[in-house]
Amino acid sequence: MFPLILQSDFGRADGAVSAMYGVANCVNPEIRIYDLTHDIPQYDIWEASYRLIQTINYWPKGSVFVSVVDPGVGSDRKSVVVKTNNDTFVVTPDNGTLTHIKRVLGIKEARILDEEINRLPNSGESYTFHGRDIYAFTGARLATGLISFEQIGPSFDVEEIVELPVAKAVIENNVITGTIDVLDVRYGSLWTNIPRKLFKQLDISHGDRVEVVISNNTRIVYSNIMVYARSFADVNVGETLLYVNSLDCVAIAINQGSFAKAYNIGTGITWQIKLTKIA
Amino acid sequence: MFPLILQSDFGRADGAVSAMYGVANCVNPEIRIYDLTHDIPQYDIWEASYRLIQTINYWPKGSVFVSVVDPGVGSDRKSVVVKTNNDTFVVTPDNGTLTHIKRVLGIKEARILDEEINRLPNSGESYTFHGRDIYAFTGARLATGLISFEQIGPSFDVEEIVELPVAKAVIENNVITGTIDVLDVRYGSLWTNIPRKLFKQLDISHGDRVEVVISNNTRIVYSNIMVYARSFADVNVGETLLYVNSLDCVAIAINQGSFAKAYNIGTGITWQIKLTKIA
Amino acid sequence: MFPLILQSDFGRADGAVSAMYGVANCVNPEIRIYDLTHDIPQYDIWEASYRLIQTINYWPKGSVFVSVVDPGVGSDRKSVVVKTNNDTFVVTPDNGTLTHIKRVLGIKEARILDEEINRLPNSGESYTFHGRDIYAFTGARLATGLISFEQIGPSFDVEEIVELPVAKAVIENNVITGTIDVLDVRYGSLWTNIPRKLFKQLDISHGDRVEVVISNNTRIVYSNIMVYARSFADVNVGETLLYVNSLDCVAIAINQGSFAKAYNIGTGITWQIKLTKIA
Repeated sequence: MFPLILQSDFGRADGAVSAMYGVANCVNPEIRIYDLTHDIPQYDIWEASYRLIQTINYWPKGSVFVSVVDPGVGSDRKSVVVKTNNDTFVVTPDNGTLTHIKRVLGIKEARILDEEINRLPNSGESYTFHGRDIYAFTGARLATGLISFEQIGPSFDVEEIVELPVAKAVIENNVITGTIDVLDVRYGSLWTNIPRKLFKQLDISHGDRVEVVISNNTRIVYSNIMVYARSFADVNVGETLLYVNSLDCVAIAINQGSFAKAYNIGTGITWQIKLTKIA
Repeated sequence: MFPLILQSDFGRADGAVSAMYGVANCVNPEIRIYDLTHDIPQYDIWEASYRLIQTINYWPKGSVFVSVVDPGVGSDRKSVVVKTNNDTFVVTPDNGTLTHIKRVLGIKEARILDEEINRLPNSGESYTFHGRDIYAFTGARLATGLISFEQIGPSFDVEEIVELPVAKAVIENNVITGTIDVLDVRYGSLWTNIPRKLFKQLDISHGDRVEVVISNNTRIVYSNIMVYARSFADVNVGETLLYVNSLDCVAIAINQGSFAKAYNIGTGITWQIKLTKIA
Repeated sequence: MFPLILQSDFGRADGAVSAMYGVANCVNPEIRIYDLTHDIPQYDIWEASYRLIQTINYWPKGSVFVSVVDPGVGSDRKSVVVKTNNDTFVVTPDNGTLTHIKRVLGIKEARILDEEINRLPNSGESYTFHGRDIYAFTGARLATGLISFEQIGPSFDVEEIVELPVAKAVIENNVITGTIDVLDVRYGSLWTNIPRKLFKQLDISHGDRVEVVISNNTRIVYSNIMVYARSFADVNVGETLLYVNSLDCVAIAINQGSFAKAYNIGTGITWQIKLTKIA
């Protein structure tokens, strides 16, 4: 028996998530169910993909994630279950939700979810709530050992899994160029796609100063110098800092303020960030 | 031991829900507690009733629901526990919260909750938090088998259970008239009280077109033609559609937009919807 | 095995709380984890302290609370674990989060959390997410009996625990003066620091009238007479009332309205409230 972890863009204001919990309880009342988040912005597959990679390494082997951000429900997009390189499972529509897991963590094996045999009994007339009728039902049966990974459906080539476009951070002439992947919503920090290991190639130590230039397409939105800090407490309240976040990537913040609000920062591949060490 | 599922209008920003969880844990640390939702709009008994019927069929027999939307706390409104036709239990103030369950699912037996004997010890001086002191406490004792349904208190006539006024959808001259029961908040869809079976009397197939007229009291708010789709993916992004929702009733939406925001739609018996098949 | 209850200012929109749950599941998959709330306003240590005292008495002995509102993460503020007078444990930065528990409930023993030995393996390069790497990890090990309270680290004097400034309600010439501690956000009620026992010294019974004067610094914000009610149902919808809240202190509300919004009320020691009995 393994934990079942649910993610969606359903919110928690109505009964949708509770219906998924109920279906899982009907599969096996001993099941342990948890939430990743249900506040993914509607239809935002990118963020669903990002939140999975943010958490999946902290759960035990065998854990089963169900992620339902599914603008194409009812289309011919595939439903899939994958086994990752750290032996956890993800049940999801194959619409890009697996982008980060495929690239960062790696996927061992992928199977097409056969919706004919893996479907809540008597749910055939509802075409709009696969989260409840197919994904939660299948995730619960997998987590509780009622079906094996092999019984999900036929195997297919991991390379065929749908990926969203991802920009890779690069270093050239001692300048690192990356993108802003996501905001730490509540604190207004920017999380970039620049790994700590790449950043270290600038030969920078805690306390050193870095020039940070942020642009949206061709427009420069922010250009200034800040300290590379171990954590927020190294700078004054209201001061900017550059630090390594809990995903081991470079992040930018204002201590106890919101950098994102202060400079109207957005996310995605049009939001570029350049880092240069100040001598 | 059966699952305990909590619903309220308390939100999750303070300690109220956690205190209810704590009380249930004191009754029995093995108890399994889940949330339906705690984001029912304050005092909105109608929505509490609707969310119960949205989810109750997806939980196992024996499950105990506690629903606390209770504008009359401290008045002489009864506290009750009912056993539904699918053998789940609901602990709630008898203020209309059971409207949909009584009409749609059916209630086998109702008992008055005797607050003298079913009350958290030493909570006698607090008159404002029955959710914690009476409902969560009693629900936990029922779910864990510490008391039986019979020990709740005296039985009373199911017909006496308080009901909110409900409009029934009707068909006349090939025009179906219903009301907008509730919004799917996050996606801005309208959920009507028109069951699929009634709708099918218009002899409509997926892909057919339907005239939809929505009015608030005497004012027409929307009048247009849309497709009856299997699901969102059958229409373009931004296009309207009529579909059967996860409660097996007719719903109206804009694919990846918000119909409710687009036309300022509200809910309740003054919000009428008329459906006519286009030849 | 005891329940683990998590509180933070992280919100639930990203993966932070789920990562904490995952870490606890890795410690022991049988662990029972619950939320107090994750919607503490960012950096608001006062409210974190208040929500702990609001709930801690309703959980079983042995329960382990983890509270992470931590503006000083990465500074030299201590991490601590305390054992309260009712034999529950709190794992938290020592930044004032224990204020109410220390004063109202009492603390038996305090230990410094030795972060060298009580830290998620391989988390040494992340300095910004102690909630996951230290607090959830340690709380889970304590709740599941993997370590004892003694193994947390060295004991220190309870008197040294950091406290925020707290005003005490007083009675003088039959006038009680207190402060507004916190808002019941969802209902707009004011919760004061005036205990029922002090209030009873005015020799007031349900139905009696009380003069209520609220001031912010020197400015009078509200001055009027209201009824001391057993609960909301004793007054009309839209009428003000004074009542004893679920923490056994005096509170002020508008029945089914928001007193806080109606009069723009805030919280903290500059918000004073005076109560006088009307003859």
